Amino acid sequence: MHPTSVRRLLADVAGGRVSVEAAVRRLRHLPYETIGHSTIDRHRALRQGFPEVIFCEGKTVQEIEEIAARICATGENILATRASEEAYLKLRALFPDARYHARARVVTIRRRRGRRARGSVAVVSAGTADGPVAEEAAITAEMMGVRVRRLYDVGVAGLHRLIGRLPELGRARAIVVVAGMEGALPSVVGGLVGRPVIAVPTSVGYGASFGGLAALLGMLTSCAAGVTVVNIDNGFGAGYAAAVIARGT
Amino acid sequence: MHPTSVRRLLADVAGGRVSVEAAVRRLRHLPYETIGHSTIDRHRALRQGFPEVIFCEGKTVQEIEEIAARICATGENILATRASEEAYLKLRALFPDARYHARARVVTIRRRRGRRARGSVAVVSAGTADGPVAEEAAITAEMMGVRVRRLYDVGVAGLHRLIGRLPELGRARAIVVVAGMEGALPSVVGGLVGRPVIAVPTSVGYGASFGGLAALLGMLTSCAAGVTVVNIDNGFGAGYAAAVIARGT
Amino acid sequence: MHPTSVRRLLADVAGGRVSVEAAVRRLRHLPYETIGHSTIDRHRALRQGFPEVIFCEGKTVQEIEEIAARICATGENILATRASEEAYLKLRALFPDARYHARARVVTIRRRRGRRARGSVAVVSAGTADGPVAEEAAITAEMMGVRVRRLYDVGVAGLHRLIGRLPELGRARAIVVVAGMEGALPSVVGGLVGRPVIAVPTSVGYGASFGGLAALLGMLTSCAAGVTVVNIDNGFGAGYAAAVIARGT
Amino acid sequence: MHPTSVRRLLADVAGGRVSVEAAVRRLRHLPYETIGHSTIDRHRALRQGFPEVIFCEGKTVQEIEEIAARICATGENILATRASEEAYLKLRALFPDARYHARARVVTIRRRRGRRARGSVAVVSAGTADGPVAEEAAITAEMMGVRVRRLYDVGVAGLHRLIGRLPELGRARAIVVVAGMEGALPSVVGGLVGRPVIAVPTSVGYGASFGGLAALLGMLTSCAAGVTVVNIDNGFGAGYAAAVIARGT
Amino acid sequence: MHPTSVRRLLADVAGGRVSVEAAVRRLRHLPYETIGHSTIDRHRALRQGFPEVIFCEGKTVQEIEEIAARICATGENILATRASEEAYLKLRALFPDARYHARARVVTIRRRRGRRARGSVAVVSAGTADGPVAEEAAITAEMMGVRVRRLYDVGVAGLHRLIGRLPELGRARAIVVVAGMEGALPSVVGGLVGRPVIAVPTSVGYGASFGGLAALLGMLTSCAAGVTVVNIDNGFGAGYAAAVIARGT
Amino acid sequence: MHPTSVRRLLADVAGGRVSVEAAVRRLRHLPYETIGHSTIDRHRALRQGFPEVIFCEGKTVQEIEEIAARICATGENILATRASEEAYLKLRALFPDARYHARARVVTIRRRRGRRARGSVAVVSAGTADGPVAEEAAITAEMMGVRVRRLYDVGVAGLHRLIGRLPELGRARAIVVVAGMEGALPSVVGGLVGRPVIAVPTSVGYGASFGGLAALLGMLTSCAAGVTVVNIDNGFGAGYAAAVIARGT
Amino acid sequence: MHPTSVRRLLADVAGGRVSVEAAVRRLRHLPYETIGHSTIDRHRALRQGFPEVIFCEGKTVQEIEEIAARICATGENILATRASEEAYLKLRALFPDARYHARARVVTIRRRRGRRARGSVAVVSAGTADGPVAEEAAITAEMMGVRVRRLYDVGVAGLHRLIGRLPELGRARAIVVVAGMEGALPSVVGGLVGRPVIAVPTSVGYGASFGGLAALLGMLTSCAAGVTVVNIDNGFGAGYAAAVIARGT
Amino acid sequence: MHPTSVRRLLADVAGGRVSVEAAVRRLRHLPYETIGHSTIDRHRALRQGFPEVIFCEGKTVQEIEEIAARICATGENILATRASEEAYLKLRALFPDARYHARARVVTIRRRRGRRARGSVAVVSAGTADGPVAEEAAITAEMMGVRVRRLYDVGVAGLHRLIGRLPELGRARAIVVVAGMEGALPSVVGGLVGRPVIAVPTSVGYGASFGGLAALLGMLTSCAAGVTVVNIDNGFGAGYAAAVIARGT
Repeated sequence: MHPTSVRRLLADVAGGRVSVEAAVRRLRHLPYETIGHSTIDRHRALRQGFPEVIFCEGKTVQEIEEIAARICATGENILATRASEEAYLKLRALFPDARYHARARVVTIRRRRGRRARGSVAVVSAGTADGPVAEEAAITAEMMGVRVRRLYDVGVAGLHRLIGRLPELGRARAIVVVAGMEGALPSVVGGLVGRPVIAVPTSVGYGASFGGLAALLGMLTSCAAGVTVVNIDNGFGAGYAAAVIARGT
Repeated sequence: MHPTSVRRLLADVAGGRVSVEAAVRRLRHLPYETIGHSTIDRHRALRQGFPEVIFCEGKTVQEIEEIAARICATGENILATRASEEAYLKLRALFPDARYHARARVVTIRRRRGRRARGSVAVVSAGTADGPVAEEAAITAEMMGVRVRRLYDVGVAGLHRLIGRLPELGRARAIVVVAGMEGALPSVVGGLVGRPVIAVPTSVGYGASFGGLAALLGMLTSCAAGVTVVNIDNGFGAGYAAAVIARGT
Repeated sequence: MHPTSVRRLLADVAGGRVSVEAAVRRLRHLPYETIGHSTIDRHRALRQGFPEVIFCEGKTVQEIEEIAARICATGENILATRASEEAYLKLRALFPDARYHARARVVTIRRRRGRRARGSVAVVSAGTADGPVAEEAAITAEMMGVRVRRLYDVGVAGLHRLIGRLPELGRARAIVVVAGMEGALPSVVGGLVGRPVIAVPTSVGYGASFGGLAALLGMLTSCAAGVTVVNIDNGFGAGYAAAVIARGT
Repeated sequence: MHPTSVRRLLADVAGGRVSVEAAVRRLRHLPYETIGHSTIDRHRALRQGFPEVIFCEGKTVQEIEEIAARICATGENILATRASEEAYLKLRALFPDARYHARARVVTIRRRRGRRARGSVAVVSAGTADGPVAEEAAITAEMMGVRVRRLYDVGVAGLHRLIGRLPELGRARAIVVVAGMEGALPSVVGGLVGRPVIAVPTSVGYGASFGGLAALLGMLTSCAAGVTVVNIDNGFGAGYAAAVIARGT
Repeated sequence: MHPTSVRRLLADVAGGRVSVEAAVRRLRHLPYETIGHSTIDRHRALRQGFPEVIFCEGKTVQEIEEIAARICATGENILATRASEEAYLKLRALFPDARYHARARVVTIRRRRGRRARGSVAVVSAGTADGPVAEEAAITAEMMGVRVRRLYDVGVAGLHRLIGRLPELGRARAIVVVAGMEGALPSVVGGLVGRPVIAVPTSVGYGASFGGLAALLGMLTSCAAGVTVVNIDNGFGAGYAAAVIARGT
Repeated sequence: MHPTSVRRLLADVAGGRVSVEAAVRRLRHLPYETIGHSTIDRHRALRQGFPEVIFCEGKTVQEIEEIAARICATGENILATRASEEAYLKLRALFPDARYHARARVVTIRRRRGRRARGSVAVVSAGTADGPVAEEAAITAEMMGVRVRRLYDVGVAGLHRLIGRLPELGRARAIVVVAGMEGALPSVVGGLVGRPVIAVPTSVGYGASFGGLAALLGMLTSCAAGVTVVNIDNGFGAGYAAAVIARGT
Repeated sequence: MHPTSVRRLLADVAGGRVSVEAAVRRLRHLPYETIGHSTIDRHRALRQGFPEVIFCEGKTVQEIEEIAARICATGENILATRASEEAYLKLRALFPDARYHARARVVTIRRRRGRRARGSVAVVSAGTADGPVAEEAAITAEMMGVRVRRLYDVGVAGLHRLIGRLPELGRARAIVVVAGMEGALPSVVGGLVGRPVIAVPTSVGYGASFGGLAALLGMLTSCAAGVTVVNIDNGFGAGYAAAVIARGT
Repeated sequence: MHPTSVRRLLADVAGGRVSVEAAVRRLRHLPYETIGHSTIDRHRALRQGFPEVIFCEGKTVQEIEEIAARICATGENILATRASEEAYLKLRALFPDARYHARARVVTIRRRRGRRARGSVAVVSAGTADGPVAEEAAITAEMMGVRVRRLYDVGVAGLHRLIGRLPELGRARAIVVVAGMEGALPSVVGGLVGRPVIAVPTSVGYGASFGGLAALLGMLTSCAAGVTVVNIDNGFGAGYAAAVIARGT
């Protein structure tokens, strides 16, 4: 039941066209019928400028096209994650302004400029192979109107590069740290910078990395306070959470 | 916002004491304020005669007393699971009609007779050590107004006793099967009786039973159709689900 | 030993053509020889109208054909789950009335109408990717003569749609809830509706979902009473159990 | 090597008392010697008003006393987590202003007022048994100068209470959500409120909750974007991360 | 239905006192009623001289007493495993000939001599701490009438002792090998002796032995053919299986 | 050092051509040099008639050919497990008498008749999909000179067939029971027949069967005494162990 | 900041061209800027003659080429592990002296002779399938200037060959032992030879080997002192660590 | 067969008192009889000065006393790990020179000075709670004649202290790094120092540290080459391996 309908119903009550009891009966199911809309409204307001997200894995290209078409009709930006090149080509046929970020396997379609966030986000990655996940995080945050600084390949071998850029990291509102194997980097960053650190374990590694489990457990048990963790390979989730922090109020 | 309040608000609108716009504003938060109550009402209706349940594990005796007092004030029956004897003695001091089922570690306080279910439930257990969990299931179902047939200690060694009572099992509306170790019994029962079987793995066993994991996985992968599973040692959950089935409409 | 044979043997005993001792010797192995048939008979009676099920995974197309032919000779309905399109095409060549439900990967061959169940089943799914498992559950229940209401894609993002249809859910005899990732939906449904809820974790998700393990554990530890669980992706098992409940006596 | 020493060395170089080469040699080990101090300085500046934290588990009472004495000498506030009552009594003997938060098992000693954060934090818990972890999070954030709103016991049974307070939740800069068993609450909160949600799985539960593993996996695979996770029972870590977010710049 | 009853029924049919149809009806449930007895009879015959076993863990002393009394009434030998000294003292009060094997935590009561097996069994253990499990295996086999050779503490450090007694091992009909930690001993024995090897992993070890899991997996993946495995710490099971092999026909 | 060399050395000592001290020095390394040969001799004697086994998985076809050629040169029988059809065709080119057992993926080459075992082995399987593993076990035992009775597809649905053939099972010296999913069949067989049961979990199943883990744990925690277990899908190991038992002395 | 810059700065201070305070300010960030270089220098010194390593898995052929070109420009030797043949062919086009070790999947490019280590390393493997990992270890050590003795295929079946070569093993400075399945070999070697043993579990095996987990746990819980472990299939890491030991000071 | 016996046998052959054939027969079993002694001799030579080790966990105080008495009779040094204070007091009664290292729970009895190793070992620990394991490692190495440098409490918070002492670490022949929680320290040390690093995960931590599993996996998947790992809490093993390396030839 749309707010407009509620207003009309009340007007009918006020005008004596609908009895109080009948109105009570109709309003009785109101919670169930309207919570959805109001939730959506509330969300829309909060998320102004946030892209609509399509998680492509496990969806057919046709399903992705349909969902994208539906969203575009509302004029919203689109962020399609884990998109194959095939899916991108189909989307580009529909939306010539679709752009493919091949490394991150992300398609973006930008239809309106959202509010620009004041804070920025830093995305740090440990190794070359962690790049796709880091890029997914970075692009997600950018699509949410947040400026992103990238600092890639700064694992143990490149620790000095990390330390050399600590001041820069300290200026970010939130830091996404992406690492596979033993996942030690977030502990190091968290120990050096007093900023919210969102750790992303990746499935990079073999053997006892058990598909990212080692990195995940390592990050969860990090001795550095202020580190929180998202799912393995979940660059999108980390970028999203970092952007929400960076936007603040 | 209570239905009565809604009615009063509408009457004020009808009487011109409140403007339509003001009423819209007040109703705006309606979903958030009323869903709780309506949910509760809905539940109450559905659950007529169901006991209020207190899961005692991890609660202090004092907390249990307070919750029990609050429930008893509403005239509802109480089912306190995983209750120590100490908790029981305290409750009995408050409610002299409290009864302790020592083996199941359950306290019951019966304040009103619920609607009697037409269907019955059978509770089957594999070994002596599975008894407490089986009893928890049985008492839970009984407190919900369902008649319970108990068939205990009918694991592999007592398979003949099980087979001898198959006709009886076939008359139950739902069958709870409790087993530890390899948890094979629900597969056997499910293969012989065309009734809903709710399997309860128990933590009985050692070594590779890994605290009930072996039984749990065995029950989940049962080759017998119609078998569903609850958490390890969750006699209450199984008895509850079986009773809900047995009560039907 | 068929009941007819038993009767004939007894007639021989009555007519003095077979001595008591000889009959005892022959009956000695009776349990072993007849339990199978009686079990089957008993099952057949209970399952009147239930389809015969072929689990196609890990079977060659030829094996599936042979089994289907054997069942069809008995005039029973067939439900072939996890069937490839290739298997379907072969089956259709044999049985032109075979029907393929592509999304659920199920083939159905309907040879007789079973007894129509009075109760109905609701099948609820959280996300698009859970659809195939939900459909498998729905079709299974339908093949067992149960009317099915489908309520798909009502995860967190669509919670309002779920709430709007709670009354409808409340009219079902049993509710199948299918969800991947964190598997929270059964807890929500179980908390809102006083009906038996059969939860189906799906392998939808990545990383720490560990092929459905996260959803499985979440459902097993659900704080909502009355929720029982089947194996990961086991739409068939859930639909079967729900139908058994819905048929009642 | 302290900055003062560096200055003195440079003055000696300027005054010709130390040759350039000798100074180069001394500065050669500078990185190793000074990084520690500068790191501490940098941290101190960032953490102004942050308490010094003692994780008491696995430390003897005597060790705790010694560490506390050392910190108090610097005039810093102290937050001692997982402190037994025995440890508290010893600390109170030394520091009469020590305060024990029994439920959270936390001792606080407040020596100076830190900078007051502009943003606030909300701490939400699912069940009574999750209370201690939630309190640990709340007190941690308060010790960091952040105002905390507590919203306890709002699991499935109390979902309406949660929904009734959504606007309030929406005003917090960060939300800590504490839940055991299936850990579904963060998904629900994350789906309703566009704020950073820090999920804390607790070890509350039994059987397939595997000491908090079910809740942990559930939270990591949450379908709600913007949810990040800390270690099982890590109320401190969640409160700390939330406070860092709430303080912003 | 006991064979005697069948005979009587047939006599009644022969004598015309019971009609064929009535007899058919009564025999209809025969499988269910008699399979148990016949199974027991069959078992008894096979197991002549086998002890009745009481697994004491998780049973109260009183329950153990009752079961022991019931068995003794039948004149059978008793083997009570995992028995506390307290349980033993109670049993000795009832049965003065009860004997306690403290290390193996086993009580034996010998009431008749079983048939002496022709073959013998060897029980090999890796370390001192594996002794109790090895003894449980050895005593179990002895109670089944099998001669046992013990070869303890022959892990890596004592490999030479093992090799020195290979001829002796080669004369046993079955070899039980008990080992904790990495559980390598069965592989070594299995590689040197062409006899059935029953491997028993023990929970001896710490850390990555995960309560016997390391030994269990090691034994299951043994590269030596002819090695089979029982549950962690299951000395009884191994001794039982070895004795069954040793008895042969 | 070959026995012949020892003899020659001793002859030299006897003939005074080598001093006692020099001989002691040469014999000093004897253990290291000769144990291999003596072990092989010992094994050969024990294994008379046992096939040489090639585990083909992870070996190239060329490697398999080379190993087979080396063995055939010794006149031994060959059992090549997990052999692809491609490997078979190559082997047949070399050894025209090579035979392929397609279902079991086993190649056999029979060059001499081994000693015929007196005892026989029964191989029981639960479902159609367990067939390849069961066949691998059966063929392995046959290649070791043991007569095999096959009893396939006797899971829960076919329990009556199992029960009908119990007497036959009782005549086998050892019983291999192959089952996937929940792996309950060995418990049932072990409970009914007093013979050594070697349980083989298979990777048949999905979801919570976790690649055979559920069946493995179920078999390890079987409540039936006398059941031992081999690795998942290890038909060869089970057949080998059963044959070793069946051959007896 | 390069040491040269530091010297220049100090010269400026000495010459009065830069004030002490200005120099302090510039040196303030010194730790962050120089640690990297000094670390690298320090490493270079230590690693003289060590190859630069490219872990190819998860890198595109193009990325591998670029990294190799960069390293070769410095005149260093290259060790590219887990390299496909395709990657090798591309590298050979650039560097005609590139050499492919097909079994180990390693490419080596040797540009200068490093310091020759005094000590040697032994690489021992259990089975044929462990060969590639063993070769990776051996080639890694050789590229680090260490002489390697290979002793392959000496698992249980070839234990005599191992024992026959114990004296040789005893002369190595470090021993790499590679084994899959139950991973018992390092325990045996560690028990016989008083040298540092580096155990490498391999993913060779099936079922309960769980991709090398069984071997890994077995090696970690080895009862032989002096055994340390690297990741599953990590031949490179083991060879590297052994070479570091063998080089000593 | 003792070497002396061999000599006597040979003398008999030389003297014609024993025929060559008879000597061959007697020597036939030589490998089995003598390998033990020769192994022990070989070991003794290698281990000169190494302590005999008693792992006390799971042994009774009486058993410990007996073993210690046996060792002391040989004049060897004793290292008793995981010793309770009670065990120590009993040992001191027997051996007044027994010394208790309370934190490490180690008893040492020094009876002779072993050869002094030329190299030294560094033992590094991350947190206070890792101290006991680190001390066990340090004392073990010291008992093996190796000089030990301790560097404790240098986790993330104290990284500067670690960096300040890198030159010192670089002088050790082997470095033991002890850490719980996420276990990141060995990666950091391994990345900075070109020495063999032996990582010891500890069970320090809670929740997702799963008793040391997180640290163990982190160390195994360390991106720093040259790091090897021992079992959780295995300070003894790490100290032993480090000492073996430090002793070199």
